Amino acid sequence: MSANTIGQNFRVTTFGESHGGAVGCVIDGCPAGIEISTDEIEKELKRRATGQSKITSQRKETDKVEILSGVFEGKTIGTPLTLLVKNKDAKSSDYEYLKDKYRPSHADFTYDKKFGFRAWAGGGRASARETTARVMAGVIAKKILKDLCEVEILAYVVQVGTQKAQIDSSKVNFEDIEKNIVRCPDEGSAKKMISLIEETKKQGDSVGGVVECVVKNPPIGLGEPVFDKLSADLAHACMSISATKGFEIGSGFAGAQMKGSEHNDPFCLNSEGKVCTRTNNSGGIQGGISNGESIVLRTAFKPTSTILKTQNTLNNKNQEIIIENIKGRHDPCVVPRAVVIVEAMVSLVLVDHYMRNTAQNKLFV
Amino acid sequence: MSANTIGQNFRVTTFGESHGGAVGCVIDGCPAGIEISTDEIEKELKRRATGQSKITSQRKETDKVEILSGVFEGKTIGTPLTLLVKNKDAKSSDYEYLKDKYRPSHADFTYDKKFGFRAWAGGGRASARETTARVMAGVIAKKILKDLCEVEILAYVVQVGTQKAQIDSSKVNFEDIEKNIVRCPDEGSAKKMISLIEETKKQGDSVGGVVECVVKNPPIGLGEPVFDKLSADLAHACMSISATKGFEIGSGFAGAQMKGSEHNDPFCLNSEGKVCTRTNNSGGIQGGISNGESIVLRTAFKPTSTILKTQNTLNNKNQEIIIENIKGRHDPCVVPRAVVIVEAMVSLVLVDHYMRNTAQNKLFV
Amino acid sequence: MSANTIGQNFRVTTFGESHGGAVGCVIDGCPAGIEISTDEIEKELKRRATGQSKITSQRKETDKVEILSGVFEGKTIGTPLTLLVKNKDAKSSDYEYLKDKYRPSHADFTYDKKFGFRAWAGGGRASARETTARVMAGVIAKKILKDLCEVEILAYVVQVGTQKAQIDSSKVNFEDIEKNIVRCPDEGSAKKMISLIEETKKQGDSVGGVVECVVKNPPIGLGEPVFDKLSADLAHACMSISATKGFEIGSGFAGAQMKGSEHNDPFCLNSEGKVCTRTNNSGGIQGGISNGESIVLRTAFKPTSTILKTQNTLNNKNQEIIIENIKGRHDPCVVPRAVVIVEAMVSLVLVDHYMRNTAQNKLFV
Amino acid sequence: MSANTIGQNFRVTTFGESHGGAVGCVIDGCPAGIEISTDEIEKELKRRATGQSKITSQRKETDKVEILSGVFEGKTIGTPLTLLVKNKDAKSSDYEYLKDKYRPSHADFTYDKKFGFRAWAGGGRASARETTARVMAGVIAKKILKDLCEVEILAYVVQVGTQKAQIDSSKVNFEDIEKNIVRCPDEGSAKKMISLIEETKKQGDSVGGVVECVVKNPPIGLGEPVFDKLSADLAHACMSISATKGFEIGSGFAGAQMKGSEHNDPFCLNSEGKVCTRTNNSGGIQGGISNGESIVLRTAFKPTSTILKTQNTLNNKNQEIIIENIKGRHDPCVVPRAVVIVEAMVSLVLVDHYMRNTAQNKLFV
Repeated sequence: MSANTIGQNFRVTTFGESHGGAVGCVIDGCPAGIEISTDEIEKELKRRATGQSKITSQRKETDKVEILSGVFEGKTIGTPLTLLVKNKDAKSSDYEYLKDKYRPSHADFTYDKKFGFRAWAGGGRASARETTARVMAGVIAKKILKDLCEVEILAYVVQVGTQKAQIDSSKVNFEDIEKNIVRCPDEGSAKKMISLIEETKKQGDSVGGVVECVVKNPPIGLGEPVFDKLSADLAHACMSISATKGFEIGSGFAGAQMKGSEHNDPFCLNSEGKVCTRTNNSGGIQGGISNGESIVLRTAFKPTSTILKTQNTLNNKNQEIIIENIKGRHDPCVVPRAVVIVEAMVSLVLVDHYMRNTAQNKLFV
Repeated sequence: MSANTIGQNFRVTTFGESHGGAVGCVIDGCPAGIEISTDEIEKELKRRATGQSKITSQRKETDKVEILSGVFEGKTIGTPLTLLVKNKDAKSSDYEYLKDKYRPSHADFTYDKKFGFRAWAGGGRASARETTARVMAGVIAKKILKDLCEVEILAYVVQVGTQKAQIDSSKVNFEDIEKNIVRCPDEGSAKKMISLIEETKKQGDSVGGVVECVVKNPPIGLGEPVFDKLSADLAHACMSISATKGFEIGSGFAGAQMKGSEHNDPFCLNSEGKVCTRTNNSGGIQGGISNGESIVLRTAFKPTSTILKTQNTLNNKNQEIIIENIKGRHDPCVVPRAVVIVEAMVSLVLVDHYMRNTAQNKLFV
Repeated sequence: MSANTIGQNFRVTTFGESHGGAVGCVIDGCPAGIEISTDEIEKELKRRATGQSKITSQRKETDKVEILSGVFEGKTIGTPLTLLVKNKDAKSSDYEYLKDKYRPSHADFTYDKKFGFRAWAGGGRASARETTARVMAGVIAKKILKDLCEVEILAYVVQVGTQKAQIDSSKVNFEDIEKNIVRCPDEGSAKKMISLIEETKKQGDSVGGVVECVVKNPPIGLGEPVFDKLSADLAHACMSISATKGFEIGSGFAGAQMKGSEHNDPFCLNSEGKVCTRTNNSGGIQGGISNGESIVLRTAFKPTSTILKTQNTLNNKNQEIIIENIKGRHDPCVVPRAVVIVEAMVSLVLVDHYMRNTAQNKLFV
Repeated sequence: MSANTIGQNFRVTTFGESHGGAVGCVIDGCPAGIEISTDEIEKELKRRATGQSKITSQRKETDKVEILSGVFEGKTIGTPLTLLVKNKDAKSSDYEYLKDKYRPSHADFTYDKKFGFRAWAGGGRASARETTARVMAGVIAKKILKDLCEVEILAYVVQVGTQKAQIDSSKVNFEDIEKNIVRCPDEGSAKKMISLIEETKKQGDSVGGVVECVVKNPPIGLGEPVFDKLSADLAHACMSISATKGFEIGSGFAGAQMKGSEHNDPFCLNSEGKVCTRTNNSGGIQGGISNGESIVLRTAFKPTSTILKTQNTLNNKNQEIIIENIKGRHDPCVVPRAVVIVEAMVSLVLVDHYMRNTAQNKLFV
């Protein structure tokens, strides 16, 4: 892993700023023979795109995927797979009035200090636009996983602001998630979440939320003993998404309140005689390694930094200024779209660990 | 990063099982000229050691540090620095009766499935004994950071079971942390936590907790834009510690409940004319890069898996068995000792990012 | 380093096949503030391009460089720099008759066996077309090095077939290299080399050669003690170029014939009182680390595999077949163009090691 | 790969100086279940050890191997495998008179400049003593390869000074190599080489040489398309050995003199109907990937820098000095012992590439 690359054997490098020529990814280490079409990638990009509903940014992303390398006659060939979408509808001039201003809780200040200056047009590399590349890579990762082991990866919204849903991760399915625009499989909660987002938007404000992800039918044995525990790499991957503030696996922070006698997951045999655990406080990972139970994780997202309310801050000459009515179209709440990004990141980690495990532990098979 | 190595420029590889010859680390990329003595490493190891108080495991670790390479006349020389402690008091036979049994929520089952068999003597590589190596490496990392920029890294307990302390991270100091055996700088809460742990121990049970860590006076500009955000790498490092279930930076999961207008941290000038933020919901990191404010993070630990109560489980022939009265000495609650490990992991990440930032952004300085 | 990526801190990933959409590179870790124009990159690409003279392939490459990311207002911004050139004039159908044939000493057989099938259109990823991406990255690396320390990197042809030139590497300059189409700074030898290549071409055959590269005024201290000796990384980089068969540093294979008393380079002071060595059999590298003397290395290239003569071989059904009159335009000798690629690879290694050395050894500066 | 670590999936980190506590290695990513004994490692160390014959250094290395981690009940367990030998017979005081002197063509000057000072006791990290760790790791790599695919790796001396042997790599066997102390399987040449080394030693001088290595029955498909060509990684590995000046694969520098019609290796079927090539100028690697033919490579070693003759040089105050009668026992020619190190390095590269290839290309097998 390094800065803009993730993975050891399935290595994904993303590139691109919100207002440069394109955003995209290079996947190195991709197995050959995977069928791939721009259609299926674009279909997934639509789940991530802005402009998809009344509760997302109204900026219209209708991205056309280009495959620049790594595919021949519709299949991957084992060489680097390069996917990109061109940036359109990217007017730098919209942002010129912000070029010397440090928006609160944006990356303006830190990029400026780190690199000596910044690309002031939009979020630049810190823009959520970058996650388009992750979603493209995620499509490939999901296909490989499906071919390998029928694993299913589902993310969904479990909280918007103070509005929490009670969801049984073992019963979630894709259709229920996609049934509503907030992507919460509990219809009752979903309605309240949508109202809350609409209300917040009207106030020119934003609100945070929590995305849960369940991996059903994961292979046993993924994850490395010490630093690259599967849980640690999932934390890394999810916390690398913009606006994240927290990560949990299994029981999470609630687990800290429990006794060992409650928290321990006893092994037993299920009705088919397969080893399983009676409870799943471990979230499918023990000693850093997947045990075959569903992997369950949650990622917390802060409220979007871009709000329409008046804010006091500084400019790059250390002068106090006021920012009001920030132009540009933004999401009042990121979680409905973040769902797709979490799924992508989880997929990337799982494929990479599948390969790593194969390299070390399936050599003699 | 890879399995047993962490870091890109400051690369720490740990090795060793609980019942093998030794546990240790090799640090590659360590700057030359750092003064180092076994005394100061052993002093820190004592903070991590078992047997230090009535609320930790009674197994007595009195580790002697050996420096095998990388030091000449008391200073690092730029070549790999190898530190180790021999395993003593490690009786494999204590564990023989467990060799075919899958203890609930231990790594027995997953190691067995991943590697084809397991070193059944104690926790093996999954034992917390491994963290001894992390703490040794952390001592070196802390020294480098102190020399570079007077950064201070303090971790402490903020929760044991349901017992939470209210602590102002800006006022915490080392002395207050070390004043009590649970390492909670709020004396009132500390007492209740200690009672709770003692009570739990009496019941043959265990309890979880939360460790908070504050990095005071961090350099600005650490962290990489996309995958290796400082927050993502800190999450990876902390979630790589055994028994962790959750990670938060700044506002954390509570931030998901907030509005943008509350959560945004407005920039302002402090009394010395230095840029700072009025609030610190960002936890010192914006866009994945440190902004100079204190870095504040929390890590949740589950209750120790080893308990004395009777448990139903399986053995490696898929037979239902009962485990009772697990031998061996264990901690009823890991957080008082985990404090030292969290500090070490945070130090390793910061030094590595300091070096990475120097390589890219201080070339022309 | 990994498959399609080279470098630890200055990480260059290349992508693209000869007959896909594009070839390009992503540079991760590039310092911000480097001025960069497509003009200067295209200028260097012309030195590498086919169709530049009567002794290169007549296929006309007139590549237009696109900068997809990492540059704002003409300067790098510290985020991944993506450069590419589209493939034009790439007729797959020219190669269709070869799709089931294993051309001798090409990568047809090995790609087929490794990946299960191959992109049969042209050389695919094994085509020298890929080196376009290396040259683009090399332009950036050279600029950084020049800004940092006025280092000069010059490669040139010292041998074509049996025709060897005697060249004093300390006296070579860019103008003398570029004065003739074979890029040999010794005019007399150059003429003979050109005749030899023309003669070989007439025979439908090809011929090998040797490229020498001198790095003048290199910084002292680049290279790592053990596996990543500067000499080892230069060997890796140069031997990763297609068609290479050998690598030498300093005295090279001739050094194996010498006595220690002849080969040792005694330290002395030059006229300006600076430490230097009386001879330079070390080729500027001692113990794997640059000593400030000119780095001198040589890379041997085999004769191009594509020849017009009739050849016996097999197809992918293991049937004996004859290949005659291979279509497509090819170089009768690669070294005149390889010069530019060697310079690029050497530049990439030096920048990366400059950064690595800065990270570890200039922290406290 | 990074400084003191080599490999992506089979990662070997070495540590230790000539006069520190120990030299050793940590192998991360080693498959579980490999039987390993200190006996077999010590047996191989004896082939590398000084003091084994009249033509090597007379310093007596009788290294006892310690296994610190990664082995349980005689088998590897998949966790980091740590092997070391303690340094004995290491008198720092022998070297004290050299502490401010820059020995010609040693690493004294470059280490001093890179790290700010140096461990002056012996060669430190630049000592050939470090290669002990490589040989230990090589034993493990060879075992894995043998178990996987009956590959055989044989290195031997083909040149000492100007004395060259003509050896048919396809007929070499281990017994013929070990039959004489110079490890040249051509008895006639071996005698002349031994005389030459003895003569050189008498003169207080040293002499260089060339080691050839043949890999018989290698798997097809190892090596990555672009930067990590098998040939490039073998070059990196071999050129990372101290005192190396050149590397060749297959035809090597001689290939540069050939025509394509001579150099191309036509595919044909052997008597068992298996695809092979009529000639093997490719040295078993085409397009960077192994084609199943024997891999043949050569590494050139310079004459040992340590000689007994009087030499002019500088000290670290830039004063001209004379060094005479360097104390310490040294090899007049390194190649008889380097044979073992070349074998180790080749083994490490092959195992790593076997794993990498498995991860990407055997997933669906």
